Amino acid sequence: MIRMNSHYKKLKASYLFSDIAKRVSAFQEAHPEMPVIRLGIGDVTRALPEACIQALHKAVEEMASEATFRGYGPEQGYAFLREAIARNDFQSRGCAIEADEVFVSDGAKCDTGNFQELFSTDIAIALPDPVYPAYLDTNVMAGRTGVFSDGRYSGLIYLDGTKDNGFVPPVPDQPVDLIYLCYPNNPTGATATRAQLQEWVDFARAQKALILFDAAYEAFITDPAIPHSIYEIPGAREVAVEFRSFSKTAGFTGTRCAFTVVPKDCKVYDEDGAAHSLHALWNRRHCTKFNGVAYPIQKAAEAVYSPEGKAQVQAIIQGYLENASVIRNAMAALGFDCVGGDNSPYIWVDGRSDSWEFFDRLLKNAGVVCTPGAGFGRCGEGYIRISAFNSRENVDKAMARIQKALA
Amino acid sequence: MIRMNSHYKKLKASYLFSDIAKRVSAFQEAHPEMPVIRLGIGDVTRALPEACIQALHKAVEEMASEATFRGYGPEQGYAFLREAIARNDFQSRGCAIEADEVFVSDGAKCDTGNFQELFSTDIAIALPDPVYPAYLDTNVMAGRTGVFSDGRYSGLIYLDGTKDNGFVPPVPDQPVDLIYLCYPNNPTGATATRAQLQEWVDFARAQKALILFDAAYEAFITDPAIPHSIYEIPGAREVAVEFRSFSKTAGFTGTRCAFTVVPKDCKVYDEDGAAHSLHALWNRRHCTKFNGVAYPIQKAAEAVYSPEGKAQVQAIIQGYLENASVIRNAMAALGFDCVGGDNSPYIWVDGRSDSWEFFDRLLKNAGVVCTPGAGFGRCGEGYIRISAFNSRENVDKAMARIQKALA
Repeated sequence: MIRMNSHYKKLKASYLFSDIAKRVSAFQEAHPEMPVIRLGIGDVTRALPEACIQALHKAVEEMASEATFRGYGPEQGYAFLREAIARNDFQSRGCAIEADEVFVSDGAKCDTGNFQELFSTDIAIALPDPVYPAYLDTNVMAGRTGVFSDGRYSGLIYLDGTKDNGFVPPVPDQPVDLIYLCYPNNPTGATATRAQLQEWVDFARAQKALILFDAAYEAFITDPAIPHSIYEIPGAREVAVEFRSFSKTAGFTGTRCAFTVVPKDCKVYDEDGAAHSLHALWNRRHCTKFNGVAYPIQKAAEAVYSPEGKAQVQAIIQGYLENASVIRNAMAALGFDCVGGDNSPYIWVDGRSDSWEFFDRLLKNAGVVCTPGAGFGRCGEGYIRISAFNSRENVDKAMARIQKALA
Repeated sequence: MIRMNSHYKKLKASYLFSDIAKRVSAFQEAHPEMPVIRLGIGDVTRALPEACIQALHKAVEEMASEATFRGYGPEQGYAFLREAIARNDFQSRGCAIEADEVFVSDGAKCDTGNFQELFSTDIAIALPDPVYPAYLDTNVMAGRTGVFSDGRYSGLIYLDGTKDNGFVPPVPDQPVDLIYLCYPNNPTGATATRAQLQEWVDFARAQKALILFDAAYEAFITDPAIPHSIYEIPGAREVAVEFRSFSKTAGFTGTRCAFTVVPKDCKVYDEDGAAHSLHALWNRRHCTKFNGVAYPIQKAAEAVYSPEGKAQVQAIIQGYLENASVIRNAMAALGFDCVGGDNSPYIWVDGRSDSWEFFDRLLKNAGVVCTPGAGFGRCGEGYIRISAFNSRENVDKAMARIQKALA
């Protein structure tokens, strides 16, 4: 008899964004006269940069001729892309990351979800709360938690993000083996200072722990004091893996390209305490379960680093950051406490009420979709996340509707 | 201290195709005057069908404009593709598969590798030998085997493929929970008859077992009596998942699109014997750890089902099948027993010697790369796999070189 992975039974019945989609569909059916404006799921809306479009067309033409056709590429990604990433995203900031430490993939969600496979099932895991649900759910599926009760899974160490700590929780006062961090944060939009990240790196080194650092939103950092990469922090090469994505920078949510950096200095330990190379382990996993990203897509990602590509991406980011500023100012003017929106596309709003109730109020009275903070964990209760990913026109319209509905 | 998944330590040191690549590189460096001809790894060489190229260009243009831009799509794939697949690959053959039972992904390697996550770690698994290494390695990583010794992992039920059974092993005489089957087979090129597949379906139904059926090579079937899909077999909807890919049909190895069919009639059982929907379980996994295939790639895959696309794919397949016939005839003329090559792009050759020794002989004396059968398991020892994926010119040249070297 084929028996299931019973850990799946511990998962909450449905996925946050599916719940939202259902409520939005129901509202749209009931109110066809009021088209909803989506500031919920963090999906980009602007066209791909022209440099990427050109690179895609050119690569497609290569696939059209036997002489230039590409079949299987290296599972880890083509050297042209890995080198462009290492040079532009890391070496240019003084981070000693080499091209062969970069693993190209089809999404940061996949990579952050898959990475836990490399570890023993009985490690102690620290996760922020609120948190991007994929970190949590993939560990539940792997059997690293107990049951869900009162908004939390037993067996995990939750790092409470609160107004008091500016949604940047301090290092815990107990031993931890694996730590998930995300800055600029999804969902709160909070950023971590160099000193705060140094504390985490020092903590991890002292514990021989590992940090999984999600930097999918680094391109939105405007404050020059805030680190873009964990590798700007001394010691991080020994204890940190970094996840990046082209989704939110170059608008690749529907084009699919991301990458993960696994420095060769990172170690994992076996049951005898012997050290093994984390890079070798991830390489084995990547080559066994993944077959690389489509060649035209990798060429499009490479184009992000061309002079034209950089300028075009910068203009897109700037547009979203202006939206973020409009949203934050509008919500603040209505008297709501806000975090994020300055170095992040997300604005985290204290709704001073139940999250889902506030979500429903914005949907029903303003036709605006946000994301209820409670969907990201117990500490998210009372908050909503508003995303700046939309056109300026829609953002202005949404804020006008919200002002009218809540004033 | 971050502890590793120690099951990785059981994996053999390196992956078959990496071993081959190393030997080929070493030979090429030593013999730059003799360019090798690659009939090893099953990678296509012909350009993408023109219908796919056109669809790609058109979809890229959609991504260039905000009005037609696509961000996140449905994780399971766009309806236009799922419907085209269900209609053309299944309903047209009388298989009752609906569009929402089709999950689009970036590769059959990923899907066949990931699917085991849905099951308990203590199930009894039957695997063919020889076998595509990804089925095996992903179960090793998940802890479903003991150690590797004398060419096999303990804890698995190996289904011996031998000359006597035509490389179509019969159902085992012991209880099994999960069964991997692949027809037309990789690596042997053998195909299973309707009666043989019916035996497997009946066996699985009697045992409440599940069949993972890899049909990545179905497009190469020329004999009208051989089933293309497991769903042509009565009862299969209750006990079989099918994996398909555009890699070998439309030349998508570097473009990346595949799909998995999970019928809603398939069940898995929990520790209390209660039945759960396998479709719901895979859907949860897919949505949590995957973010869909790039929109332009899905449009290219859809074009495979257009009248032009079908004709172009058929011409490509026909070309590879002609290569296969040339290879099989040449090897048979040299006195080697061969399987496959008629309904498959692979020819499985009894080299009457150690696999790696024969591999080295072909490489060193003929500059031809094949795949040593021993890399696919103990029953592959003594055999090599020759792939028909190359130009006709190269295949002719390779066979002439082999004839000269071995005559």
